[in-house]
Amino acid sequence: MYKNLKIKEPTLLVDLQRCKFNINKMVDKAAQYDLQFRPHFKTHQSIRIGEVYKEMGVQKITVSSVQMAHKFAENGWRDITIAFPFNPLQISEIEDLSEKINLHILISSQLSAQKLTQITHHKLNYFIEIDAGYHRSGILAEDVKQIERAIQLLSDHKFTGFLTHSGNTYQAESVKEILDIHQQAVAKMDVLKSKFFSQYPQLIISIGDTPSCTLAKNFAAVDELRPGNFVFYDLMQYNLGVCQFEDISVCVACPVIDINKDRNELVIYGGAVHFSKEYILENEQKIFGKVVEITNTKWDNFAEDIFVTSLSQEHGIIKASEKFINSTSIGDVLGIIPVHSCLTANLLKDMTLINAD
Amino acid sequence: MYKNLKIKEPTLLVDLQRCKFNINKMVDKAAQYDLQFRPHFKTHQSIRIGEVYKEMGVQKITVSSVQMAHKFAENGWRDITIAFPFNPLQISEIEDLSEKINLHILISSQLSAQKLTQITHHKLNYFIEIDAGYHRSGILAEDVKQIERAIQLLSDHKFTGFLTHSGNTYQAESVKEILDIHQQAVAKMDVLKSKFFSQYPQLIISIGDTPSCTLAKNFAAVDELRPGNFVFYDLMQYNLGVCQFEDISVCVACPVIDINKDRNELVIYGGAVHFSKEYILENEQKIFGKVVEITNTKWDNFAEDIFVTSLSQEHGIIKASEKFINSTSIGDVLGIIPVHSCLTANLLKDMTLINAD
Repeated sequence: MYKNLKIKEPTLLVDLQRCKFNINKMVDKAAQYDLQFRPHFKTHQSIRIGEVYKEMGVQKITVSSVQMAHKFAENGWRDITIAFPFNPLQISEIEDLSEKINLHILISSQLSAQKLTQITHHKLNYFIEIDAGYHRSGILAEDVKQIERAIQLLSDHKFTGFLTHSGNTYQAESVKEILDIHQQAVAKMDVLKSKFFSQYPQLIISIGDTPSCTLAKNFAAVDELRPGNFVFYDLMQYNLGVCQFEDISVCVACPVIDINKDRNELVIYGGAVHFSKEYILENEQKIFGKVVEITNTKWDNFAEDIFVTSLSQEHGIIKASEKFINSTSIGDVLGIIPVHSCLTANLLKDMTLINAD
Repeated sequence: MYKNLKIKEPTLLVDLQRCKFNINKMVDKAAQYDLQFRPHFKTHQSIRIGEVYKEMGVQKITVSSVQMAHKFAENGWRDITIAFPFNPLQISEIEDLSEKINLHILISSQLSAQKLTQITHHKLNYFIEIDAGYHRSGILAEDVKQIERAIQLLSDHKFTGFLTHSGNTYQAESVKEILDIHQQAVAKMDVLKSKFFSQYPQLIISIGDTPSCTLAKNFAAVDELRPGNFVFYDLMQYNLGVCQFEDISVCVACPVIDINKDRNELVIYGGAVHFSKEYILENEQKIFGKVVEITNTKWDNFAEDIFVTSLSQEHGIIKASEKFINSTSIGDVLGIIPVHSCLTANLLKDMTLINAD
C-alpha cells in the first residue's frame, strides 16, 4: 500500500501526466477541426491546472459563476465566458469585470435579455444560450422569433454568438446515442448560423459537453469547444464509454478505518462531504466510486471490481470478496475513482499532484 | 419578494429564533429524562451556533472529524467526542488534542482496538461503538465476546461507555417504525449496560440520531443524547414525520435566473455545489428541495407545493403552476428548504442569520 504521500484524510490526487495528456489531446483535436478551445474551469477550479492550460497556449476559458470569473481574472485570464444564465443580482460584479477583461455573459431567454437592458448602461458581450434538446435552460433552437427579439433587445450590447450545452449526453445509454444527440444539436446550431450569419458575420457557435467534444468527429458549423470534465474524466464518463479507465486523472485517497469481516465490508474515511452523493446504477446497485490500488506513482484496478456501495456524511462502505477484505488492514489507504469529478473536486478543494515532474 | 438581505447568490439563511427553539426543546428534553446532552456539531460546523449552545449551558459536544474537534477546541470547547471510527493515520493529532481537552474517540471493532494499542502510549478516553441494527460500523450488540476483547485490549485507556447511532431511522417509513428501531436499539444497549455495569460502573450509554432523540419517550438505560440535525431539521426529517415544517430553521435563498413559460419551469442559481445531490422520492419523483416564499423575517409555504425537481452543478430547476410561473420574475429570490441540512450547510459554509435580535 501507498505510504509516501503521508495521506491522513480523504485527499484528491491528480495525476498531472494524465491530466496534461487529456488537455493536450483536446487542444490537438480543436486544432485539427479548426475550432477555438475555451475549456471550462468549473471542473478543477484550480490556478495550478489553469497554468497547465496556459503553457499549452490556451488563452480563453469558461467558468460557471461570476465569482469564478473574478478568481481567474485575478490570475491573469483575459477572455472569460460565464456559461451560466445571466444573474441580474450580480450585475455590478459583471460590469466591474467587463471593464477589465473580455467577458462574455449568457442570455438564456427574451426575458433575461429584457432584464439586462433594464439594469445596465454598460456594453456587454453576450452569447445567446440555445436549448438544442437538453431542456434545462436556453431558448429552443426552433424558436427563431424569440432569438431575434432577444438579439434586437440587446442591440446596445455585443453579440458573440450562440452557445449550447448538450447535457443530455450524460443520460445516454450508448456512444451511438451520444453521437446522435451531438449530431442533432450541431444540425440545429447549423441552421441558426445560416440564418443569422449574413447579419452577424462575426457570430460563433460554441458547444460544450465533454461526451460530444471527446467522441464526435463532425463539428459542422461549430466554432468553439468548451468541455471541462475531460481534464479529469471520472467513473460516469468511463461508464458512458467516453473515456478509457486510464484516462481518468483523479482519484481520492481514503484511509480504511474499520473492517467488518462478517459482512465482507470495509469502512473508509470518505463520505458525502468528500464525494457528494452522485451515483451510477449498475445492476440496480448504487455505486458511489470505484476502489483502486494506489502505488507510488499511479493507481490501478484490483484483480476484482470493487465499489463504494454507500456513503453517509463522512463514512464510505466498500463491499468486496473475503480474500480482499482479509488482505486489507485498518490504516491502509485505498484510492476511490469518483463518480463525478467536478463535484468531488469542488468539495475537496486542495489537490495533491502526482507525476508532476 | 424579499429584498432586504441583498442576496446575490445562493445564501444559507438560518432563522436563529427557530434554531434556539429547537436547541432549547432538546436541552429541556434531555433534562426531563435526566440525560446528558452532547449535541453533534457536524450539522452546523458553526462557531456562532456553538455560542448559542454555550449560552444554554451545553458544555459537551460531538464532532465527526479530528479537524472539527481541533476547530471547536480552539474555540473553547473542553469535552469533545469524535463520533467517527478512530482513524489511526491521525493519531498524532488525536494525541495532541487529548493533552489539551477531555477528548473521547470511537473504537468500532476489535481490530480497531488492536491498532490503537500498537501506535500510541497515550492514555485515551474511548467509547466502544455498538451496531444496534444500522449495520454501518461498530461491533454488533450481540457480539459480547468481541466487545470484551476490545475493552481488554484497551486496558491502558479509559473506557467511557457504549455509543450507537441508529442511522437506519432515516430509512423508516413511519414514525412507528422509527420508534420501533429506537426501542430495539435501546433494549440492546440496556442488555450491554447490565452486563458491563458491575465491572465499569462509570460507563455511559450514548445514542445519537435526530429522529429517535426527537420522537422517543423511553430512554431506559440511555445516559447521553448526541443529535445534530435537529438544530436545523430539513425536508428529509419533515418527510419522516420527525418535525413540523415550522421547526425547520434553514432555508437557502436562491435567485431566479430564468423562466421557461412553455414548460412552466424556473431556473434558479442553486445547484449540486450548494445543496449536494441528496433527494427524497415523492410519487417516484426526485425532490431536491421545497420552494418557499421569503418575507422580511421568515419564510412560508406558497399556496401550492412547489419543488426543485432537478439539480446540476449550479442550476436548479423548479416546476410549478402557470399561475406561479407568471407571478415570478427573473431576479426574484426564492427560498429553498434543503433535503439534507448537514450537507447543505457543509457546502455553503457561511450563514446569514435572521431573527437574530
